[in-house]
Amino acid sequence: MSLSESLAIAITQGDCAGIGPETIAKAFLDAPETLRGCFIVGELETLRRAAQAVLRAGNCSLPVAVIDSPDQAWSVPARCLPLLPLDGLPGPAPWGQISRDAGYAAARCVEWAANAALQGRIAALVTAPLHKEALSLAGVDFPGHTELLQAAAAAHAGVTLDQMPVRMMLANDELRTVLVSIHMSLRDALEAVTQPQVLETLRITHLALTRTLGRAPRIAVAGLNPHAGEGGLFGREEIEAIAPAIAAARAQGMDVHGPFAPDTVFMRARNAPGHPGEFDVVLAMYHDQGLIP
Amino acid sequence: MSLSESLAIAITQGDCAGIGPETIAKAFLDAPETLRGCFIVGELETLRRAAQAVLRAGNCSLPVAVIDSPDQAWSVPARCLPLLPLDGLPGPAPWGQISRDAGYAAARCVEWAANAALQGRIAALVTAPLHKEALSLAGVDFPGHTELLQAAAAAHAGVTLDQMPVRMMLANDELRTVLVSIHMSLRDALEAVTQPQVLETLRITHLALTRTLGRAPRIAVAGLNPHAGEGGLFGREEIEAIAPAIAAARAQGMDVHGPFAPDTVFMRARNAPGHPGEFDVVLAMYHDQGLIP
Repeated sequence: MSLSESLAIAITQGDCAGIGPETIAKAFLDAPETLRGCFIVGELETLRRAAQAVLRAGNCSLPVAVIDSPDQAWSVPARCLPLLPLDGLPGPAPWGQISRDAGYAAARCVEWAANAALQGRIAALVTAPLHKEALSLAGVDFPGHTELLQAAAAAHAGVTLDQMPVRMMLANDELRTVLVSIHMSLRDALEAVTQPQVLETLRITHLALTRTLGRAPRIAVAGLNPHAGEGGLFGREEIEAIAPAIAAARAQGMDVHGPFAPDTVFMRARNAPGHPGEFDVVLAMYHDQGLIP
Repeated sequence: MSLSESLAIAITQGDCAGIGPETIAKAFLDAPETLRGCFIVGELETLRRAAQAVLRAGNCSLPVAVIDSPDQAWSVPARCLPLLPLDGLPGPAPWGQISRDAGYAAARCVEWAANAALQGRIAALVTAPLHKEALSLAGVDFPGHTELLQAAAAAHAGVTLDQMPVRMMLANDELRTVLVSIHMSLRDALEAVTQPQVLETLRITHLALTRTLGRAPRIAVAGLNPHAGEGGLFGREEIEAIAPAIAAARAQGMDVHGPFAPDTVFMRARNAPGHPGEFDVVLAMYHDQGLIP
């Protein structure tokens, strides 16, 4: 299949009071070839303002090309912004101010793109940043993208949120990491480190990466406590929750190792020049766990 | 003052069942000029075994040169291991086994070097790794170097441990970070994030770096919770403990900023090519807080 026969990729405009639209416009300006087959989901005046903002110092132009369907993205010439506008979206909000309208528009774009992906009309979605307080002002009761996508997936499948568990993965060329919990206090995150939650995270990670890599991923699991608890001296979650979850996952045939000391496992998994990563992914126990470089 | 008139630097042998002695021997073999004026505190047979181990593949020699006092380190020729042996240390323990004797020897070396530094007989100490379980077998009731050094400093000053609060700093050319707590469970670490503990950490950091840098350090403080609590949505420690500690420190004239989201503040402080760090140091709230690179 040639590129032009592939499904297009949607980019959501993000919160229009923030850096999202400009960042997207600059990407189309700087790397038009990389973005062939991508289009923006958003609002016309918002994207025109963004194009103006990134052109301020130069003298070329960056027109917005309105499209009606995702596959038209392929026929938009380089150095245009291919925009699929959604009906009824409010126009640009003032920069830097938390805005209900901006939150509403941002959420609508994510919902549209999530549904398009679930229905197989686009290949993937890329999201520009949104603002949690603006979402909240707009009555959108989700703290971030992960939860918006979960809700769309659950609605698409006709199940409850509980029946559609999701996890966030952070990934680049060097490292992938999947988090047991994300947008909650660290105190609550501790309570989320249970045998079933860790096992569920392992299951989701294994399935997702098996699909991506075409083989079972090598999964490393970070401990929760300093030095992974040092044999129970600094906490017992490794003994009581994490190690049993790893044992259960291995019994199900997953390639899982750990728990490892959290201050070294990320370096072991990291793919760097001269140092191929020992693992394909690291399970982190909470949002900000990681190494200090 | 020329280098040869400076005080020498002590390197403790670490746990002799581990990688410490070999690592030290290899450093003296590979970088003799860098290590001029350094000497090892340890035991003769342990260092001879280490020298043998690192020479295994080659055919040169790496003799151990026994010295009686720190300043003799300067007169030991390159490609020798300058060793100041302590009386009554047990010889090498089997590699890879947790050993009471190894724990005892490791602790004795750290105590000797700490006292020598406190008495102004050496410029600094560098420690090879020790093993907490071996320390414990030897009846040394401290979980790591930080606590051993604290005990030596308190004894030297004739005060109790409570009167000699210490914090661990991790530092390299790119980043410095000071931790509010270290060797305890994450659950206990949460309880340690109080206004007085954060303020005490700021005070120690400010004093130590003012001495090192010759000016007041720019201190960034990480929040405890994801996104530094997102205005109280994900935890209230930022509002109730961390921000008040920062305000108190600023009122005392310290250059302190935050609390910042823990997943971005370390990158902001990091000194990298083309990106001078915005801060001299980051206060982390617990042992494994940091960015995922």
